[in-house]
Amino acid sequence: MNIAIVGAGGAVGREFLKLLEGGALPVDNLRLFGSERSAGSAIPFRGKPVTIELLSPESDFSGVDFALVSAGGSASLQFADVITRHGTIMVDNSSAFRMDDDVPLVVPEINGDDALNAPRRIIANPNCTTIQMVVALNALHRRWKIRRVHVATYQAASGAGAAAMQELHDQYGAISRGATPHVERFAHQLANNVIPHIDVFGDNGYTREEMKMHHETKKIMHDPELLVSATCVRVPVMRAHSEAIWVETEQPIDVAEARKAFEEAPGVVVIDQPQANRYPMPLDLAGTDPVFVGRIRRDIAGNGLSFWTVADQIRKGAALNAVQIVQYIIEHRG
Amino acid sequence: MNIAIVGAGGAVGREFLKLLEGGALPVDNLRLFGSERSAGSAIPFRGKPVTIELLSPESDFSGVDFALVSAGGSASLQFADVITRHGTIMVDNSSAFRMDDDVPLVVPEINGDDALNAPRRIIANPNCTTIQMVVALNALHRRWKIRRVHVATYQAASGAGAAAMQELHDQYGAISRGATPHVERFAHQLANNVIPHIDVFGDNGYTREEMKMHHETKKIMHDPELLVSATCVRVPVMRAHSEAIWVETEQPIDVAEARKAFEEAPGVVVIDQPQANRYPMPLDLAGTDPVFVGRIRRDIAGNGLSFWTVADQIRKGAALNAVQIVQYIIEHRG
Repeated sequence: MNIAIVGAGGAVGREFLKLLEGGALPVDNLRLFGSERSAGSAIPFRGKPVTIELLSPESDFSGVDFALVSAGGSASLQFADVITRHGTIMVDNSSAFRMDDDVPLVVPEINGDDALNAPRRIIANPNCTTIQMVVALNALHRRWKIRRVHVATYQAASGAGAAAMQELHDQYGAISRGATPHVERFAHQLANNVIPHIDVFGDNGYTREEMKMHHETKKIMHDPELLVSATCVRVPVMRAHSEAIWVETEQPIDVAEARKAFEEAPGVVVIDQPQANRYPMPLDLAGTDPVFVGRIRRDIAGNGLSFWTVADQIRKGAALNAVQIVQYIIEHRG
Repeated sequence: MNIAIVGAGGAVGREFLKLLEGGALPVDNLRLFGSERSAGSAIPFRGKPVTIELLSPESDFSGVDFALVSAGGSASLQFADVITRHGTIMVDNSSAFRMDDDVPLVVPEINGDDALNAPRRIIANPNCTTIQMVVALNALHRRWKIRRVHVATYQAASGAGAAAMQELHDQYGAISRGATPHVERFAHQLANNVIPHIDVFGDNGYTREEMKMHHETKKIMHDPELLVSATCVRVPVMRAHSEAIWVETEQPIDVAEARKAFEEAPGVVVIDQPQANRYPMPLDLAGTDPVFVGRIRRDIAGNGLSFWTVADQIRKGAALNAVQIVQYIIEHRG
């Protein structure tokens, strides 16, 4: 299997490499692509250096089976044709194609089969906040049918990239020295703060990040009537996202049965022993694969359930889900 | 007016003193009370040292008009009779008496008149998270009648006291030195983390902090049918709390009119210019008096409104509200 990673120098690109190094896909040949900033440098893979090629209109993807792409929306738009024209299937981590009717938007645990029908040879990876939420929702939706979702997020610095994570770390140093923290990657200082603003604001007062959770959930779950209202908030955490979620279901939901449904759901791990101070937290779970669910209880203000999820934003929220899409296609295509 | 501060050595006690120093109440004589740890030390007030007296069964509150009490629930229970027996009105910041039928639970902007009828001479100050939420809810409830509230909190270290704030600060230093942060005041490391656990868990899976928001809101707003489901989360922030709130109203609510209602509501300041990156944030608003409201928009998953609030946990969330209760009584009693 010939694989390419596009955006090899970024936080998600490096995670793709880690997953392949760990044997996630049967790689015969690996090619790496990047921007002018990273092109020319070499990254070791299985003990041998692989040089990052410059992604350009002249790049030749012939013979590449799958390209794992995380280079930003504008690069994805600009180079999708270059990447796919000789038959390569592009799994794209940007938001560029997610809502296109002829591009499947896939979380393998939920709608893996959609990945088998990609007329443009582009498959979109959902937004990190959406992936972790729908993996949990899926456990409930099949049985009780979810009608409304209210979700407040606690999103890590990693969603803004490696430099943003470094900025947060540097702010801790400044605060403990009594110096003024440097602010560049976020709109405001993140250390000692929470920022209710991720991506740009739309006319309805929601951010694009929040509307992604609304639109992408409908598409992945094949349910245009499922409504999501999100408030997305950046918090001073390094790399795993947390979400406080309330769901209103069509069928009356039982807490014990909901817990069982979570425990049996693919991709979900339940941590829910509050009396022992055990519930999912981002500091504990960074770098892990599952979507963790805890704080499972009845919604005492509605007809449904309340719970809490944590997942690593770079793994299941990005690189891992994209690799799982490729795994699904390899296993299921005719 | 003779005033006593009980718990003068704590974070809220120090804020009481600051408010009185600033002229919030007409103080003729000030007495300070504290535990064995702080008793004997002196705190300057209007340029003169006031010695902290030991709070004991022998303490004599004769002649004290109002006692501002923030010494923890067990001290409040133990000494309520000592404090009130000679006619002193006790404004208590603990949760000890809040749900007692014969103890008013008061946010002056909403139910100030309740403070005028306190048969046990005890008036309870609501929990910080409740105060900031109900001040905002009150702007909407009168006109549109709120039926359900879903709220996710982002609570600062200050809610756990001055030592907890210092622990968070020290954790930043440890992280930036590459050392292991010391954990003592919280169940888990708070820096680089969020903890979905404040106060103890009950049988229904909600914490006591979350159930306070449920029960106290009904009592303050005189509406037993108003339902609140909360997820309370500690975040690495020093002293202002934030809340993401959704309300479902009986009457259809209009976003522009809701914004106007917030702008006209006592105690509320609207900061809502998202296109200019202007919304309430805890880092900016620590040490201020109002409840700040922003991110006002339609709930696209329900029949109501979504918004975001920030307020200083120690001021409006504790000391300021207690002082305002005393102000209200002075102005309105016959």
